[in-house]
Amino acid sequence: MLNLTTLKRVTIVAERVLESELIHLLRETGAKGYTLIDARGEGSRGVRASEWAGSNIKIEVVVSAEVADALLNSISERYFKHYAVIAYMTEVQVVRGHKYT
Amino acid sequence: MLNLTTLKRVTIVAERVLESELIHLLRETGAKGYTLIDARGEGSRGVRASEWAGSNIKIEVVVSAEVADALLNSISERYFKHYAVIAYMTEVQVVRGHKYT
Amino acid sequence: MLNLTTLKRVTIVAERVLESELIHLLRETGAKGYTLIDARGEGSRGVRASEWAGSNIKIEVVVSAEVADALLNSISERYFKHYAVIAYMTEVQVVRGHKYT
Repeated sequence: MLNLTTLKRVTIVAERVLESELIHLLRETGAKGYTLIDARGEGSRGVRASEWAGSNIKIEVVVSAEVADALLNSISERYFKHYAVIAYMTEVQVVRGHKYT
Repeated sequence: MLNLTTLKRVTIVAERVLESELIHLLRETGAKGYTLIDARGEGSRGVRASEWAGSNIKIEVVVSAEVADALLNSISERYFKHYAVIAYMTEVQVVRGHKYT
Repeated sequence: MLNLTTLKRVTIVAERVLESELIHLLRETGAKGYTLIDARGEGSRGVRASEWAGSNIKIEVVVSAEVADALLNSISERYFKHYAVIAYMTEVQVVRGHKYT
């Protein structure tokens, strides 16, 4: 029988320059793993990033609701003022949920 | 205190040839930004795209429910008949929701 | 008028070595298509994959709830013991849902 746990997936899209800082923040906040993908894009600041390939990164983590809140809070406070960062979360059903918390 | 807004994330997976047309459509419909990722894949038409790397693109936008509907509608009308395009949406909780609408 | 169907999107993140096996499993279980993206990352085993680019893959499929359950079940049984695989699902609203089932 399939045993599913409801958790949050947090998605962060940011400039590549923030990669190691963000990974550090993820660990610090309690994420047990992350997936990182190269991306292009354009944000509300009108800064076009698609001219140089792979200039953005998209990071996804699956975490508890508490860690998700803490993460969105930290990202908002530290980066939103000076960097082109977006962050959001959605609900996911996860197999073997204990691996994430 | 974390201030979250419920919005829609629309995901579009399409042949690379549609990239600039789709980005134009996103802007026209009211999306303030987008994330674009190179992808491979196979669709219900049985057209295998994995032989030539990066031949597909996956575009994600976070928008209001109204813009999401308009976007899915336009994509459906313009592309579904002649192109291997898929499009779907999911609910997301976003930090600083005003940036997206 | 936009006709939306509620389906499941299943996300699998795995070591690249599992690519063809996983695609075979997807077809066998009833998925009509998939999107595959190169990824980096780190999991709960502490195995850092970011040193060699593209060593992980992220596969996404949109399927019925039944196929989603079957897929998560198979992946859990076959791979979780010996491989660094994560799998989860989320609800999506899809245009032209009949293409997926």
